[in-house]
Amino acid sequence: MSIESKLDELGLHLPKPPEPIAAYVPCLQTGNLLYISGQLPLATKDYMIAQGPVASRIPVDQAQSAAAQCVVNALAVAKQHLGGDLTRITRVVRVGVFVQSDDDFHDQALVANGASELLERLFGEQGKHVRAAVGVNALPKNASVEVEFIFEVN
Amino acid sequence: MSIESKLDELGLHLPKPPEPIAAYVPCLQTGNLLYISGQLPLATKDYMIAQGPVASRIPVDQAQSAAAQCVVNALAVAKQHLGGDLTRITRVVRVGVFVQSDDDFHDQALVANGASELLERLFGEQGKHVRAAVGVNALPKNASVEVEFIFEVN
Amino acid sequence: MSIESKLDELGLHLPKPPEPIAAYVPCLQTGNLLYISGQLPLATKDYMIAQGPVASRIPVDQAQSAAAQCVVNALAVAKQHLGGDLTRITRVVRVGVFVQSDDDFHDQALVANGASELLERLFGEQGKHVRAAVGVNALPKNASVEVEFIFEVN
Repeated sequence: MSIESKLDELGLHLPKPPEPIAAYVPCLQTGNLLYISGQLPLATKDYMIAQGPVASRIPVDQAQSAAAQCVVNALAVAKQHLGGDLTRITRVVRVGVFVQSDDDFHDQALVANGASELLERLFGEQGKHVRAAVGVNALPKNASVEVEFIFEVN
Repeated sequence: MSIESKLDELGLHLPKPPEPIAAYVPCLQTGNLLYISGQLPLATKDYMIAQGPVASRIPVDQAQSAAAQCVVNALAVAKQHLGGDLTRITRVVRVGVFVQSDDDFHDQALVANGASELLERLFGEQGKHVRAAVGVNALPKNASVEVEFIFEVN
Repeated sequence: MSIESKLDELGLHLPKPPEPIAAYVPCLQTGNLLYISGQLPLATKDYMIAQGPVASRIPVDQAQSAAAQCVVNALAVAKQHLGGDLTRITRVVRVGVFVQSDDDFHDQALVANGASELLERLFGEQGKHVRAAVGVNALPKNASVEVEFIFEVN
């Protein structure tokens, strides 16, 4: 079953990848590593599905969905780079998760699981990655989560 | 002298490496780079040696020990991956240090030295690495420090 | 026109690269990737051009200048490593930007543009990179910005 079919089954859909903005690019390949810029949980160009700190403004389950949305957006970026063929992703290498957190919120790992578990569902063993998950006090556009990625591709 | 002997001399001991949790893995090799997931200063599976912000709750010297514990835990992970042979680490490439900080704490570099100096003692010139050390307002399980690593291996 | 000439035109000058401090190094090459340690906006060894949180203490335009200063310092480090020849940088791969932010400051992307736009002016298409820009509550020496880099070199 294709990655896109698995996403469909989960009710998730690849958006149009974001246009390159200003002086940075959504992804860049060096050797067989595809680096993806930090993704925000935008469901459309203008609609962010989670804004504000976890857990006072955004509960953990909603933050997990936001982390999953970051994965979806990263895959849209990767698909465009890979000529439409997500099977060229041979391994998810690293996921960096920044969670906008109240000072007393300590479940960043749970939030990050929203991204990690989706990647495993989509890619199986190849979806398992190393991860750093931390809290921060502020993120661009007041996003609750930002996630960056390194994929191994062929 | 082996890395393990040097650790012994410093009163440090490699723990049993953490079990893979959920959908991410403690380490992953791509090419000759071994990425290690963000490590927390757990001395045992259940005992974190430093929790809360530096410096109001945890003094700098204790946070340095916590950063060193993250190194020890990363080496336990690496050793398992490398078939028990830590001499296969040919270079420490990058160390990323996140310090749970009070807003007015500015000595993240000192805390990070707890990790960096241990790596140099263990690996000599090959232990010298690039580093990013920053403060954050919150970390998983209220850890005072989280450290991630990239090792070059053969 | 050389990178140095372009910097001159912008009124920017490569400083003496910082001395290696303690147990970490300003840069390290593995394969054809040159990792640069997190750079602070130091104009001289002792003078930081922006300290304190954005935007309450440091306005956005000054934080952008600080991010640009981090680029300048990174190029000074890279130039020394590359035997004086910055044309050996074939691609800017990744830029990681940490902005010391008030809790309600959400324009980390604007601040990071201070680094990204300078890299594009200096390196053209090869200067376009992936990026993660996040807010943090505290940085070493009370810096307003810290930026780390990965360059592809030949």
